[in-house]
Amino acid sequence: MDRTLENNDEIYMREALREAQAAARDGEIPIGAVIVSNGVIIAKAHNLTEQLQDTTAHAEMLAITSATNYLGSKYLTRCTLYVTVEPCPMCAAALCWSQIDRVVYGAADPKRGYSRFSPSLLHPKTEISAGILQDECSAIITEFFKKIR
Amino acid sequence: MDRTLENNDEIYMREALREAQAAARDGEIPIGAVIVSNGVIIAKAHNLTEQLQDTTAHAEMLAITSATNYLGSKYLTRCTLYVTVEPCPMCAAALCWSQIDRVVYGAADPKRGYSRFSPSLLHPKTEISAGILQDECSAIITEFFKKIR
Repeated sequence: MDRTLENNDEIYMREALREAQAAARDGEIPIGAVIVSNGVIIAKAHNLTEQLQDTTAHAEMLAITSATNYLGSKYLTRCTLYVTVEPCPMCAAALCWSQIDRVVYGAADPKRGYSRFSPSLLHPKTEISAGILQDECSAIITEFFKKIR
Repeated sequence: MDRTLENNDEIYMREALREAQAAARDGEIPIGAVIVSNGVIIAKAHNLTEQLQDTTAHAEMLAITSATNYLGSKYLTRCTLYVTVEPCPMCAAALCWSQIDRVVYGAADPKRGYSRFSPSLLHPKTEISAGILQDECSAIITEFFKKIR
């Protein structure tokens, strides 16, 4: 990966982190996501499972729906999703259906992450990058659970 | 399983089939779902991926969101989902998060069904019943693709 792309990854992951911070302020498990198309953020979302009382309202799911609405297309080819934590199997399979080009995540999730179940939950054509700003993405979750326990 | 439960399964699966028929009329891949709580149908939905241009708009996902809204709870314990086709990994993992009691499906989906990826995508406590009205559930899909090809 060239250095420019890497820098951009950090810029977009910081936006996802901002979404995670917004989630934390609302008492939600702090996970945030953004979707980028041609260098433009077309969707931002954070986890809303508590507010909506809906276990499907993960940051990635809301971002996918928002991005497809924006594009007027059910496919997210040529888009990249940035998410602070490794997607769960639901979100990975949703990303597979969307045929998204690239998925970038921060912290790994050894318990609930999709890769523990099956790496093939994501589309074979989707490029994966892991570990972008992982310390910050992980710290915000650890802090959140420290406070509520 | 006692005979009463089996008969009820057919009754509720017929409702899911009705939803699938509504999907077919709208040009959607004909999959329907209902969620039952204490013998009452609390959510009905069918696939809306074309109409909403959103790959997350599977019948099961819409039914889960609808049922959690109805119950005011993000958990679907003591509920049963009836769906005409084996859930995909996205829907299976969403059902896992919801901690639903029981999932009943009609036709198997050897290509896209969750069980090809990992049976543990569903919650370990969720009871699964397969094959209820499978011929009818399968026929409506076959007919749909025959017409559009």
